[in-house]
Amino acid sequence: MSTPEIERLVDLLAKLPGLGPRSARRAALHLIKRPGQLMQPLAEAIASAANAIRTCTNCGNVDTVDPCRICGDPERDRSVICVIEDVADLWALERTASFGGNYHVLGGTLSALDGVGPEALRIGRLVDRASSAQVVEVILATNATVAGQTTAHYITERLADAGVMISRLAHGVPVGGELDYLDDGTLTAALKSRREV
Amino acid sequence: MSTPEIERLVDLLAKLPGLGPRSARRAALHLIKRPGQLMQPLAEAIASAANAIRTCTNCGNVDTVDPCRICGDPERDRSVICVIEDVADLWALERTASFGGNYHVLGGTLSALDGVGPEALRIGRLVDRASSAQVVEVILATNATVAGQTTAHYITERLADAGVMISRLAHGVPVGGELDYLDDGTLTAALKSRREV
Repeated sequence: MSTPEIERLVDLLAKLPGLGPRSARRAALHLIKRPGQLMQPLAEAIASAANAIRTCTNCGNVDTVDPCRICGDPERDRSVICVIEDVADLWALERTASFGGNYHVLGGTLSALDGVGPEALRIGRLVDRASSAQVVEVILATNATVAGQTTAHYITERLADAGVMISRLAHGVPVGGELDYLDDGTLTAALKSRREV
Repeated sequence: MSTPEIERLVDLLAKLPGLGPRSARRAALHLIKRPGQLMQPLAEAIASAANAIRTCTNCGNVDTVDPCRICGDPERDRSVICVIEDVADLWALERTASFGGNYHVLGGTLSALDGVGPEALRIGRLVDRASSAQVVEVILATNATVAGQTTAHYITERLADAGVMISRLAHGVPVGGELDYLDDGTLTAALKSRREV
């Protein structure tokens, strides 16, 4: 049918979330028709991001520097750590511009089924950070799903001896909803009226 | 929020059909999390396709060789030319494996609104090809949309003096539907019972 180059491109594009086999084919054709305006720039953007991006060893955020610019920013409040599942959640919270503290990106939720244990989620590193004298509060902002709440519950237990206040986002996050899909207003309200566990 | 590298990647991904701003952000993050397995391979696949792919000067198909492998294949019947709007339609017809002739890719439809005239659609080249002694039939397989049928009608007039039989895909293509979204069976049936205009 088409060429091996195109087939390989379609196969890889189909691995992106939101693109199935047919839409990947359309996307590939869309690229092929725009070699100069879109195709070469996209190849370069992906390669340059792949080279430049690293994971922050402190908080798990992705940035071009390690520690990331949020961890390295002296203007941000280091006494508060907001724990999220994913970098997309960090981006969602940053979009609201209503949080001035630091983050801790878990990289997922605990899952016995998928074999994801505490060691896979940077939870040890979180306990270390929370035990530091300068940290006063840990906000658990995992998703309002069963997996997210189970993980939050586990973290609460692990932080029992860390001497920090543990809070959660206020109700306002719809049950079963995911942070990255919320509007900024709801997210801001949920952050402002967070309550101690 | 994130880094300029990521923002540029998101902006370019959002230009792909099927990805909006939010899904482009998810796709970018999906890539960033898989630098070795997906991100570098995708960058290379896009760059290598961009370098390898050319448009066939004979029929408008995309391939790594010009003329394309369909035009260059001595096994295919050069007496029949199937006219389609887009390379995606060619792929859809090839998937059915029920057509052994050659193609002519218009690259769109006539549109006064968008300023797409006959010269933008390789119609002159189609008239030249159809006027060759070896061509007996031209199948008009443009979409069953107003634009597709208008274009087919215009091509019928232009081919009046070419001395070829002009046929259309049989009814079976749903009115308002697009070839690339049809199942192979319907497409095969429509091709088999094509009728002379």
